[in-house]
Amino acid sequence: MTLDTIDFSGILEEIKEEVFPFFGKSKQADYIPALAKVPGDKFGMAVRTVDGQEFVVGDAKEDFSIQSISKLFTLMQVLGLGDEDIWPRVGREPSGTAFNSLVQLEYEQGIPRNPFINAGAIVVTDILAGRSADASRRIVDYYRMLSGNEENRPDEEVAISEKECGYRNAALANLMCSFGNIHTPIADLFDVYFRQCALTTSCLDLARAAMPLVCGGYSPIADEQVMTSRDAKRINALLLTCGLYDAVGSFAYTVGLPAKSGVGGGIVAVLPKAFSVAVWSPELDRYGNSFVGGKALELFTTKTDLSIF
Amino acid sequence: MTLDTIDFSGILEEIKEEVFPFFGKSKQADYIPALAKVPGDKFGMAVRTVDGQEFVVGDAKEDFSIQSISKLFTLMQVLGLGDEDIWPRVGREPSGTAFNSLVQLEYEQGIPRNPFINAGAIVVTDILAGRSADASRRIVDYYRMLSGNEENRPDEEVAISEKECGYRNAALANLMCSFGNIHTPIADLFDVYFRQCALTTSCLDLARAAMPLVCGGYSPIADEQVMTSRDAKRINALLLTCGLYDAVGSFAYTVGLPAKSGVGGGIVAVLPKAFSVAVWSPELDRYGNSFVGGKALELFTTKTDLSIF
Amino acid sequence: MTLDTIDFSGILEEIKEEVFPFFGKSKQADYIPALAKVPGDKFGMAVRTVDGQEFVVGDAKEDFSIQSISKLFTLMQVLGLGDEDIWPRVGREPSGTAFNSLVQLEYEQGIPRNPFINAGAIVVTDILAGRSADASRRIVDYYRMLSGNEENRPDEEVAISEKECGYRNAALANLMCSFGNIHTPIADLFDVYFRQCALTTSCLDLARAAMPLVCGGYSPIADEQVMTSRDAKRINALLLTCGLYDAVGSFAYTVGLPAKSGVGGGIVAVLPKAFSVAVWSPELDRYGNSFVGGKALELFTTKTDLSIF
Amino acid sequence: MTLDTIDFSGILEEIKEEVFPFFGKSKQADYIPALAKVPGDKFGMAVRTVDGQEFVVGDAKEDFSIQSISKLFTLMQVLGLGDEDIWPRVGREPSGTAFNSLVQLEYEQGIPRNPFINAGAIVVTDILAGRSADASRRIVDYYRMLSGNEENRPDEEVAISEKECGYRNAALANLMCSFGNIHTPIADLFDVYFRQCALTTSCLDLARAAMPLVCGGYSPIADEQVMTSRDAKRINALLLTCGLYDAVGSFAYTVGLPAKSGVGGGIVAVLPKAFSVAVWSPELDRYGNSFVGGKALELFTTKTDLSIF
Repeated sequence: MTLDTIDFSGILEEIKEEVFPFFGKSKQADYIPALAKVPGDKFGMAVRTVDGQEFVVGDAKEDFSIQSISKLFTLMQVLGLGDEDIWPRVGREPSGTAFNSLVQLEYEQGIPRNPFINAGAIVVTDILAGRSADASRRIVDYYRMLSGNEENRPDEEVAISEKECGYRNAALANLMCSFGNIHTPIADLFDVYFRQCALTTSCLDLARAAMPLVCGGYSPIADEQVMTSRDAKRINALLLTCGLYDAVGSFAYTVGLPAKSGVGGGIVAVLPKAFSVAVWSPELDRYGNSFVGGKALELFTTKTDLSIF
Repeated sequence: MTLDTIDFSGILEEIKEEVFPFFGKSKQADYIPALAKVPGDKFGMAVRTVDGQEFVVGDAKEDFSIQSISKLFTLMQVLGLGDEDIWPRVGREPSGTAFNSLVQLEYEQGIPRNPFINAGAIVVTDILAGRSADASRRIVDYYRMLSGNEENRPDEEVAISEKECGYRNAALANLMCSFGNIHTPIADLFDVYFRQCALTTSCLDLARAAMPLVCGGYSPIADEQVMTSRDAKRINALLLTCGLYDAVGSFAYTVGLPAKSGVGGGIVAVLPKAFSVAVWSPELDRYGNSFVGGKALELFTTKTDLSIF
Repeated sequence: MTLDTIDFSGILEEIKEEVFPFFGKSKQADYIPALAKVPGDKFGMAVRTVDGQEFVVGDAKEDFSIQSISKLFTLMQVLGLGDEDIWPRVGREPSGTAFNSLVQLEYEQGIPRNPFINAGAIVVTDILAGRSADASRRIVDYYRMLSGNEENRPDEEVAISEKECGYRNAALANLMCSFGNIHTPIADLFDVYFRQCALTTSCLDLARAAMPLVCGGYSPIADEQVMTSRDAKRINALLLTCGLYDAVGSFAYTVGLPAKSGVGGGIVAVLPKAFSVAVWSPELDRYGNSFVGGKALELFTTKTDLSIF
Repeated sequence: MTLDTIDFSGILEEIKEEVFPFFGKSKQADYIPALAKVPGDKFGMAVRTVDGQEFVVGDAKEDFSIQSISKLFTLMQVLGLGDEDIWPRVGREPSGTAFNSLVQLEYEQGIPRNPFINAGAIVVTDILAGRSADASRRIVDYYRMLSGNEENRPDEEVAISEKECGYRNAALANLMCSFGNIHTPIADLFDVYFRQCALTTSCLDLARAAMPLVCGGYSPIADEQVMTSRDAKRINALLLTCGLYDAVGSFAYTVGLPAKSGVGGGIVAVLPKAFSVAVWSPELDRYGNSFVGGKALELFTTKTDLSIF
């Protein structure tokens, strides 16, 4: 695997051409107005290699809503704090059912299956909220440190809209509360949680922010070891087995990289010791993952012949 | 990642010492007499590298019952035949529930979640049985070709015992039949299926037989390309996301290799382009995976610092 | 409640006219040829009062397939034998899900919710099969005794067809076997079970055979106390809460009588101390109950102003 | 069935003696302090016949917390208003699972199985809250009208405690909200709902308030037809099939009367056209129904030989 010989620029340009036929086959998220009004034909892609090269194509520097990709960064933040209290409260197994199902949560007594489904991410945020009265600001600061972009901030309109229609998340949080697995008052917790989901970011920001998973826990942007090498590997394992809701197996099968997606249309993926890659395109498949983004990543690992398998 | 610098012999010897405290903490499978009478303190481990070196320790050449690891080889056999009919009939997602649950199978209309749970493996065997009246012999021949060991054969006593107590598997097969997803008469199908599970093998056989997943579909033992490079990658992805029942996430987290386990106490794992490793120890954890075997593999990836992540 | 003042003959004639618009809105059972070929527009109804009067209309003396109504008579037979062993093996609660669901059976460790769902009835037949090598003949003899009709016999063609396509029932039986709740070899058990379901009967036979539930356990046809008065009451309670699969609440709400239905299109209902009523019409609603039969019984309790509520 | 010949006074006295051995075998509800501190050995029973006679024994005039029995009276109130909008929003089938399970509610898209489980009762209260800004007062007024006791009022301490620990109910309500089946803001709705559950009442009050179900919709206390005769019958049918959570079948089997229970230890039951009977004893069985109360009602129907079966 010699990265030097790969023409990333050319590959990104090719992908941009080749995904063209996949637009218009599905729809962007429409449960809140701010997401519904994003043009469906947006497409951006950014790569950053372990040796610091960066490649972009299309709308790679345009901001979009991070949504569930924030679950990755709050988990990194908690583990970076050396907080091992998380594992009795959140599992590490794929959920095997739709991403917001209450069934499994009830059956398993309020312990979410993993930190990348909504219930699990709410517990992760609960841990951060329990450590600081100012959790919301700290979450933003942590992401800015990793991305190096001080402009990343929550879109307050999005945050409010999400909170107003977040009945399923409220059901999840209340159910976990009934099992004693949420400690912060729910209204306060959701102030933090929905602001974290409403963070705006670009593909390039994401590719930079994910570098600790490429570099054994080291962030070249912050020039800081933000977690242990062991934790970086573990998060990659969790991403591969749990990062894409109910499409995790298919994604591993077709793309073969640890990755996290969000309903804003973003997906970020990494090949440890090699590169991170982020893609954005708002139209979603039936699992809530970017449809064109998934195709782009499949093309990317096919063209580079690089995957963990 | 330079394999040459790794002292595999020394590492295997170390592991053999270090797993000593883990014996006696759990029990071997006891649902059929032939499995229950295997001594619990057996331990063997074998490694084969991409460049053909082999390393063994302990009982690595002793035969045991392959059990569910056979699911891996029947899947390789079907895909090697170029048979893509499998995917409409079997999913590629982790099950998220216990390995023999009927619930999900009913909910999903007789389509098993993946080829590594019992229901999925029964469909894979049904495909082989549909292609040949002599499927049982062909399955054995295929495994012998990959392992290079003509002594691998079904233990008929085990096969009969399993068939006699296989009520849950009969429930699964009948349920799939009711949805039209089994084509072979069930009694005939189970003659094949339980003989495949009763195959005897050693760690060294397993390490050799798994080499196509290391070498892009090429078997150095058979000196033959037994499947495409693409299919080899895909099977590795499936193993990582679905190969260890309800412990797939924890195993990825602690070991970080695509792997398949069986209740006979065997586990085989691979690092693509590097090595295969097989371990055997009969005492099982609560998920039906070898307890000591899991610890041994965790030590192995820690000591070698080699995993896919 | 004075039965003498009710013009049962007139009411039955009225109902026959009034159900006319309900034909052709649904379809008869079609999973086996013998049931599919019964004309959909058949309609018969029979009433027998506690004082021995009988009233019939339409095809009330024509034979049809008893199907699941046989579950009522095997339960009566087991309880009449004084066999209380049944209750640890079968529950007494409504199932709350579709009539042949495996989910609940797995969750509740092989104990069916009640004797009127398939799994529960299979256990009841297993009890009878465990008491006699000639259970099939005894089941027929018992029904003949209650109906007074020596012509009631299994339709062997129906029995064979059902056995051939009975995959779901085989799944249920195997699952219960895996929990130790079936004792007869499954093939033998199904010989008995499917012959009991294939019994032919008429509305008039059914109305007569159900009289022990009207007369405190006494059969006026056999002139014999076939069960205790207490057991007769208890069976009525079970019928009301569990007799119509997933439509038990709606049926209690609209008809208000303990009743049992079958996919042959028959329904038999009783008002304790007053009368039994049987109806037959082959077109089924989505719960597998006779659509026109249900309408007829609703009209019957409305017109007579007689129900248990 | 001649009520005149029954010595209700004597029977109630006998029951009071005979239930003595059943005390101390279980515990009262303890999830809120106000319920936990009620002495476990309380016992009262009241009967009111269709001809206006009343019989009491023990603590029949002492107040306790109505809890889930309020679900019966809010349903009566909604149906009495002629509001048929309820049925598309609430089912009429037994739930077949524990009384506060979210699983079924999710599977069935936010439509609760019946009005007597928590989710269903919350929808009923939502209907009342949608008709009046002063729903809480109207619910109390309605119950006072039926019981004739102006002292019936919510225990505000109980109402507040319940709201504070009502996470599961909040999960249910939020889940139904996500399916569009709750229209009132949840905080407002729960102000009404928990006050209705906190109503204090006595056995005698309950026996009087249930009379419309005995008298074809007529309340002899209010001297008013509070619902149609048809609705009274239908509610009785719903009570029999759905009134006692997951013990509905066993209760029908052993007692044989339409009934509703609450975790305050009360149970009210009716025999249409004959009598109502209320019992109170705080120790609960594992289904959340009064243990001694259930025994008392079983003795009552055995001694009077009166049940609907």
